[in-house]
Amino acid sequence: MNNNTPQAVAGTPDIDELLQDLVHANHILFNEGVVDAFGHVSARHPDRPERFLLARNMAPGLVGAEDIIEFDLDGTPVDADGRKVYLERFIHGEIYRARPDVMAVVHSHSPSVVPFSAVKSAPLRPMCHMSGFLGEGAPIFEIRDVAGEATDLLIRSAPLGESLAHSLGNNNVVLMRGHGATVTGPTLKRAVYRAVYVEVNARLQADALRLGPVEYLTRDEARTAMESTEGQVERPWQLWKMRAQANRR
Amino acid sequence: MNNNTPQAVAGTPDIDELLQDLVHANHILFNEGVVDAFGHVSARHPDRPERFLLARNMAPGLVGAEDIIEFDLDGTPVDADGRKVYLERFIHGEIYRARPDVMAVVHSHSPSVVPFSAVKSAPLRPMCHMSGFLGEGAPIFEIRDVAGEATDLLIRSAPLGESLAHSLGNNNVVLMRGHGATVTGPTLKRAVYRAVYVEVNARLQADALRLGPVEYLTRDEARTAMESTEGQVERPWQLWKMRAQANRR
Amino acid sequence: MNNNTPQAVAGTPDIDELLQDLVHANHILFNEGVVDAFGHVSARHPDRPERFLLARNMAPGLVGAEDIIEFDLDGTPVDADGRKVYLERFIHGEIYRARPDVMAVVHSHSPSVVPFSAVKSAPLRPMCHMSGFLGEGAPIFEIRDVAGEATDLLIRSAPLGESLAHSLGNNNVVLMRGHGATVTGPTLKRAVYRAVYVEVNARLQADALRLGPVEYLTRDEARTAMESTEGQVERPWQLWKMRAQANRR
Amino acid sequence: MNNNTPQAVAGTPDIDELLQDLVHANHILFNEGVVDAFGHVSARHPDRPERFLLARNMAPGLVGAEDIIEFDLDGTPVDADGRKVYLERFIHGEIYRARPDVMAVVHSHSPSVVPFSAVKSAPLRPMCHMSGFLGEGAPIFEIRDVAGEATDLLIRSAPLGESLAHSLGNNNVVLMRGHGATVTGPTLKRAVYRAVYVEVNARLQADALRLGPVEYLTRDEARTAMESTEGQVERPWQLWKMRAQANRR
Repeated sequence: MNNNTPQAVAGTPDIDELLQDLVHANHILFNEGVVDAFGHVSARHPDRPERFLLARNMAPGLVGAEDIIEFDLDGTPVDADGRKVYLERFIHGEIYRARPDVMAVVHSHSPSVVPFSAVKSAPLRPMCHMSGFLGEGAPIFEIRDVAGEATDLLIRSAPLGESLAHSLGNNNVVLMRGHGATVTGPTLKRAVYRAVYVEVNARLQADALRLGPVEYLTRDEARTAMESTEGQVERPWQLWKMRAQANRR
Repeated sequence: MNNNTPQAVAGTPDIDELLQDLVHANHILFNEGVVDAFGHVSARHPDRPERFLLARNMAPGLVGAEDIIEFDLDGTPVDADGRKVYLERFIHGEIYRARPDVMAVVHSHSPSVVPFSAVKSAPLRPMCHMSGFLGEGAPIFEIRDVAGEATDLLIRSAPLGESLAHSLGNNNVVLMRGHGATVTGPTLKRAVYRAVYVEVNARLQADALRLGPVEYLTRDEARTAMESTEGQVERPWQLWKMRAQANRR
Repeated sequence: MNNNTPQAVAGTPDIDELLQDLVHANHILFNEGVVDAFGHVSARHPDRPERFLLARNMAPGLVGAEDIIEFDLDGTPVDADGRKVYLERFIHGEIYRARPDVMAVVHSHSPSVVPFSAVKSAPLRPMCHMSGFLGEGAPIFEIRDVAGEATDLLIRSAPLGESLAHSLGNNNVVLMRGHGATVTGPTLKRAVYRAVYVEVNARLQADALRLGPVEYLTRDEARTAMESTEGQVERPWQLWKMRAQANRR
Repeated sequence: MNNNTPQAVAGTPDIDELLQDLVHANHILFNEGVVDAFGHVSARHPDRPERFLLARNMAPGLVGAEDIIEFDLDGTPVDADGRKVYLERFIHGEIYRARPDVMAVVHSHSPSVVPFSAVKSAPLRPMCHMSGFLGEGAPIFEIRDVAGEATDLLIRSAPLGESLAHSLGNNNVVLMRGHGATVTGPTLKRAVYRAVYVEVNARLQADALRLGPVEYLTRDEARTAMESTEGQVERPWQLWKMRAQANRR
C-alpha cells in the first residue's frame, strides 16, 4: 500500500496507480498552463462507478496523493476529514452521472479557450488532427439561461451541474460562458491530453481566423484522427510527466 | 522583532506581517509579469491610516523589508534616511486620501493593459468571473486634460495624484493613457490578485474582440463573481509566493 | 566507437558524427518549440544514399543515439530489433527518393505554421532575410485530394508519402493541411535551421498581415539571402545545441 | 588591468569598465529576447572617437571580453588577430561617422519590430512613456532603393552603411525592410534600454492597433518622457544584468 494514500481511498493496485496518475495529472495540467491556482481534474473510481476522486480545495500544482478525496455523484465527500472541498465539485459528479462512458473530467480556465466561451458567433472547431476529439464542435453553456443574470458563473450546486451536463450532451468538451471549459475522456490520460490540446486548438484557430477562412476537419476526419492520435496518448503523457517533475525539483 | 525591518517602521505583530507580505507582493508582481524594473505596490499603514508603506526607488523584484519606507499622504517620507523615493508616490498618497476603503495600491505598466489605455474606443470590461472587480469598467485618466500636451505622463506631484484619484472615482482600476494602470484593493492580497487578473482579463478581452462581439459580465454578475472569487484569494497568493521564492533561489 | 551507438548503424567517423548531430537535432527542435511530443527529424545515410536514419517512435526531446534506426526508402526498418517505428516514416523515405539533393527532413506541427496550412487564401511567403529558403512560397498538401474525406490526415503509407513529395516539388517546405509542415535541407543543420525559421517567419508574417500589406522578399532576394544566411548556420546551431543541453541537465 | 581584456583594447579604467558593460550588453540583449544567434551591439571608443568596439562574429549570448575587437570607422579591424568579423560591421562605423552624438549602436531582428519593417503603411510610433525616444517615429530603410532587387538585405559594405545612416537621419531608430532595426543612444546603457523598449513598444502598438485608433504621444510628450525615463536607466540595467547573469549560471 502507498504510504501517502489515505486508507479511505487506497486499496487495490488499480486504485493506487490511478491515484498516482491523478496526482501527476494535477501537476501536468499546471505545468502545461492549462490550470493556474484554479481548475481541477477528477477520475471516476475504478471499482465503484458511483464515486469519483478529486483533490481537496487547493492549487492543482501543489496536490499530493494525501489530498485526494472520494466523493459520491451528489458531490458529497465520503470522508473529507475536515478538509475544504471545491465549490464546483458538482461539475464532476453530474457529468459522471449523465455520461457512463466518461472516466475523467478536467475543468479549467485555459487562456486561449476562455475567449471562445464569450464570443458566441465564433464556434470552437477542430482545425488539426491533434484535436479530432472536438468533433463537430463544443457547445457553450450559458448559465444565465438557467440561473438568471446575477450569478457568480460558478457551478455551485447539483442542479447547475446537471444543466452543464445537459449542455455537454454527447460531446467531449463544453465551454462555459465567461468562465472556461470542461473536458471529458474515456481515460484519465485522454482527458488530460484533450485538456492540453483544446487549448492548443483554440490558439491555432484564433490565429488562423485572422488569416482568412479556415478549412476545418470534416466530421469523419475528426473521428478518424481522434482514434489515431489518442492511441498514442502514452507518448505525450510520459513527456509531460517528466517535464512536470523536473519543474518541481 | 524582524531583523530585516527598520525600527522606524516595524512594531506590532500586524505591521511585521504586513511588511513581509509587502515584500512578497513586490516579488509576486515581478514574477507574474505585472511589473518589470518599473511599477510599485503600497499598503496603508494598519495602525496609522494617514500613512502608507512603499519601497524606496528600486526594481520591485529586488525589494527587501529594509527597503520599505513610511510616507504620509502628501508623499513625504517619514524617514527616508537618504534613500531615493519613487517619483510617482503621489499615486498612492492621493488615492488613500480620497478612498478610505482602499488599503493597498498597485501601479504597473502590465503589457496587455497598456494598449487599452491608449485606445479610448475600446473600454476594458470584465469578461470572465475572475475579473469581476472590473465592475462596469475602468476609466481612462488623460493627463493632457489636466496638465497639457508636454508632460512626461508621470504622476509627479500631489495635484496630479489628486486628479488621478478623481478619475478613479469609486472604481477599483484606473487606466492611465500611454502609461499603464493603477489598481486598488481592500487588502494587500486582493490588490495583488486584481493587478494580476486585470492583465489576464486584458489579454482575454483583446483575443476575444478579434473573434467577434463579446458577451461581458453584467453588473450583477461582476459583483457576485468578485465576492466569490476574492473570498479564495489565499489560494493564488500561496501559489504565487511559492513560485516567486523558487525563482529567487 | 561510440558506446551508445548500436552496431547496426555505427561505423565510419562520418556516420558517428552524423548520429550525434541527429540526436542534437532532436533535442534542439524540442527545445526551440518546433516539435512537442510529436514530430521527427531524419538524415539520409552518408554512405548509403538509399537509406535514412530516424528515431524509433518516441518524443524527440528524449531521443538518444541508441534510439536511431536505419530505414530503406520504402520505410522498412533495416533492424528495428522489436522497437516501434513512427507511423509517418513514409514522409522521409519518399522525399529522399524523389529529391536526391535532400539530405535531411524535419516534420513538425510547429504552432505558427499550422494556421497557414489551414487557410488556403493566405500563402506563407518569406518576409525577412532569415527565411529566404521559402523562395516563392510553400505549397499546401491537401490529403483529401488523394485520399478522400475521412483520413486521419497522417502520411501512413508509401503512396501518401509519394503524393506529399509530389506536392513538395522543388520547394524546400511543404505545408500539410490541418496537420503541420515538412521541411527539407541539403544538410542536417540547414534543415534544422529552416524548421526553426519557418516557425519564426510564420509568426512574423501573421503579425505583419494584421498591420497592413506586407512587402515580401522578391525571388532574387530570397535566393541571395538564403545563400548568405545559411552560410552562417554553424552560429545558431552551436547556440541551440548549448541551450538544449543546458535545459536537459 | 582586467585579465580577460586583450592588450590591444584595454587601457584606462574607463575603457575597462566600458568593455565589461559591452559584454553585459551582449548578454542582456540575448536574455531579454532582443537578439538570438544574430544581431550585435557596439560602443564608440571613449578615448578615440574614430574607433568603435564590437565583438567578433559570434552569438551575442556567448561573448566574453576577449572577443571584443576595435574597429576604425571604415569597418576595418585594428587587430582582429585572425578572428572572423561581422558582415554588417558597416552599420556601426557609418552611423558613428554620420552622428557624432551617438556613442552606442544595437542591431537586431527583434520579433515584434520586424513586422513594422515590412509594412510601410503602419509607421512605428511611441505609444507609451517608456518609448519616448521614438519621437516622431522610425524611418524605414529600403535597400532596394540603393542596391536593387537582388540583395541579401544585409549591410555588407561601407556605401550601404552610409545609405542606412542617411535614412536614420536625426532619429534614434531606423527600421530595415524585411530585416530588423538599428537603434542608437548617447550611452551604451541607453542604447540597450532603447533596443529593449522598441521591441516592447512594437508589441504594444500592434496589440493596440487591433483594438482601434491609437492615441500616440505628441512630439513634446515623447521628448519630455524620454528625458524623464532615460534618467532612470540604471534601474532596468541592474535588473537585466542580474537576470542575464542568473541565466548563465
